[in-house]
Amino acid sequence: MSEEGQLAAAAGTDRSTGTFEDARARLELSLMTEPGDPRLAAVVEAIGAVQTRHVVLEGHCALGDAGQRWRARLREHAIGRAEQLLERHPISTSGAERSALRWVCPGTAEWAVQLEDLGHVEPLQRLAGSPLGLWARGPLHLAAVADSVAIVGARAATSYGTQVAGDLAAHCARHGFTVVSGAAFGIDAAAHRGALAMDGPTVAVLASGADVAYPRAHCAMLDRIADTGLVLSEVAPGSTPTKMRFLARNRLIAALSSGAVIVEAAHRSGALNTLNWAGRLGRVTMGVPGPVTSSSSAGVHQLLREGGSVLVTRGDEVLEAVGTIGRHTAEVRRGPERMLDLLDNDAQAVLEVLQPRAPWGVATVATRAELSVDEALRTLSGLLVSGLAERSDDGWRLTRSAHEQLRRSRGARDGAPT
Amino acid sequence: MSEEGQLAAAAGTDRSTGTFEDARARLELSLMTEPGDPRLAAVVEAIGAVQTRHVVLEGHCALGDAGQRWRARLREHAIGRAEQLLERHPISTSGAERSALRWVCPGTAEWAVQLEDLGHVEPLQRLAGSPLGLWARGPLHLAAVADSVAIVGARAATSYGTQVAGDLAAHCARHGFTVVSGAAFGIDAAAHRGALAMDGPTVAVLASGADVAYPRAHCAMLDRIADTGLVLSEVAPGSTPTKMRFLARNRLIAALSSGAVIVEAAHRSGALNTLNWAGRLGRVTMGVPGPVTSSSSAGVHQLLREGGSVLVTRGDEVLEAVGTIGRHTAEVRRGPERMLDLLDNDAQAVLEVLQPRAPWGVATVATRAELSVDEALRTLSGLLVSGLAERSDDGWRLTRSAHEQLRRSRGARDGAPT
Repeated sequence: MSEEGQLAAAAGTDRSTGTFEDARARLELSLMTEPGDPRLAAVVEAIGAVQTRHVVLEGHCALGDAGQRWRARLREHAIGRAEQLLERHPISTSGAERSALRWVCPGTAEWAVQLEDLGHVEPLQRLAGSPLGLWARGPLHLAAVADSVAIVGARAATSYGTQVAGDLAAHCARHGFTVVSGAAFGIDAAAHRGALAMDGPTVAVLASGADVAYPRAHCAMLDRIADTGLVLSEVAPGSTPTKMRFLARNRLIAALSSGAVIVEAAHRSGALNTLNWAGRLGRVTMGVPGPVTSSSSAGVHQLLREGGSVLVTRGDEVLEAVGTIGRHTAEVRRGPERMLDLLDNDAQAVLEVLQPRAPWGVATVATRAELSVDEALRTLSGLLVSGLAERSDDGWRLTRSAHEQLRRSRGARDGAPT
Repeated sequence: MSEEGQLAAAAGTDRSTGTFEDARARLELSLMTEPGDPRLAAVVEAIGAVQTRHVVLEGHCALGDAGQRWRARLREHAIGRAEQLLERHPISTSGAERSALRWVCPGTAEWAVQLEDLGHVEPLQRLAGSPLGLWARGPLHLAAVADSVAIVGARAATSYGTQVAGDLAAHCARHGFTVVSGAAFGIDAAAHRGALAMDGPTVAVLASGADVAYPRAHCAMLDRIADTGLVLSEVAPGSTPTKMRFLARNRLIAALSSGAVIVEAAHRSGALNTLNWAGRLGRVTMGVPGPVTSSSSAGVHQLLREGGSVLVTRGDEVLEAVGTIGRHTAEVRRGPERMLDLLDNDAQAVLEVLQPRAPWGVATVATRAELSVDEALRTLSGLLVSGLAERSDDGWRLTRSAHEQLRRSRGARDGAPT
């Protein structure tokens, strides 16, 4: 029996989220570990946060050595610290607490469900998992961050890069998309500022606490973001950033957004890590080229050479890549029975060929639907977000719900009773 | 019965090339029409040049209205003009005539057989067909232009573009590849000069006569190319360029080379026409990105967004795309029985999955060979040049010869008698 299986047997399967008890347990667990701990994420996924807290406190043998460390840290630090934090900061339940720095959790009205996609991808650099919760500062409703574009890139950006990033962000903001980035020097700051200049919503995801201005020089910009958008963090208020926290933060930028654009990145740039997460999560990945004589564009060119990413040169190309299906998704949610009529031709072609059981690779889907691999990937990503397609390690297939809806819709088209 | 069928029945099927009579007939026919006439190419392909000359002169009814115009032009101009030209210029037979401006034809030792690929693709802008022959000026043996890279781009190039084009050409020349271009202002000239600076062979294909300096300002550069490489033209000595001759010339640049790189091109640039031909001919097509703020790179970015082309940033990436299989091809020609051992892993993977009968699309080949679409396309292009794969409208398949060789090789590997 697996570790999670043993724990589930011991703890029962009550995984109710959205309660005060669950939110407090999640906060305590988040204070017990560093963000992105794949083992903790797996245990919480299996038995829920409240039961995880319980088995950690009782020192369940299935948790092994880590369990002993967790237990000590939970008892000696996390429980007390959580109590202090909850005296000063609210837990977001309805999203009405948006004036304050607040703790937002899965299962509540303000949670951004797309973050859960992180629970379904393999670890990268030993980081994985949907966050236990997020600290949020600013009036934007986290769940409203649905149509969003991550714009990331080099700290040591050129004036070319910052100009392009600012223009792309302004275009996205003007068309109702939220710009997500990391508030770093260079491209990140240019992206936030491009959105702010349009009075558009923008989200900064930090590796420090959501109340800590990092870098210090961006204090005023972060306050401005917190006035109109959101400053988010997986680590507690007051925390300082570390290398691992930056890497863990990158996965959140990728998971929050519908697609990620990289503007300038040297070889081995940290921004490529964000794009890597975006690709693994089925998000559209995009790169803005630059002069081949500029080392600041070398990482972007490498990404584009590897295939699977879209070369973009203008804001409308970014929105074309991420936008179409996002828009349709909104329609689909309102009236699932009219789904097929609302999808564009590419999405219909992919749904026609996807199977409910046998998973297929992107290239196979592309061939059968007569699309390019990029088009197929973009479409599948949209169908994933819409809950119509799902991805396993072996490839893509229809969700049960999509299969049912297609069956009904085909019946209706053929004049058969539904 | 088709027009060509009627003509073949009337004329017999003697299509012997490599004779003086054939070369003179080809020259006369070339003087009778503009280059790239798809109807004439089809007739010559069907019944040979000597018989075509014959049926044109006798005014065969299957040639229709065009036949009357051809007949008048052949009798009143082309035959006499050919005689004048042949008094002053030799026909290349063994390639020993390389000191002079000469007429090079299919079926002779100096002919570049890859030009024949033009006989197997659909017309573009009403131009098509393998050239009847080429005027050549310079010491380079035309048949030796096998490992070659076309480098083309904007006339109105920026200093960025000319620098990159020169660097790429120098790299290709240094590694034994011939640089093919069109001698125009901007990128073309930078490419030729990059090769010349390395004392590397370079080929200029002109829309004017091979003895006409066009543009005039490039007179010295063209003489320099003719001192070490080749100046080629499909039109007679003394001819001036026209718009259609430029378009017809582009197909020759594409067909001569193993792959084509575009460095800077505005939207709707003529250089994109060359890349279009290259793609249709199964050559590797490559683009060098630039700043998205530069209109001189907009056409390149559009090409790269369309898929099927490789983004390249350095000379070694160009040679990686065109080079590997070209090198192996040379080996293969020496010892076909060792073919499989000499091919790289990608080529072996593609040969393993290609079928002798059922043609497959690139995406299917990519999936089955577990390659990216770009890798598969690059590999297939190489196999095409090697005569191991062939392409029809329905997709790619093994050639009969490759199928035979694979069968023998598998027999040998399994220990069976061959």
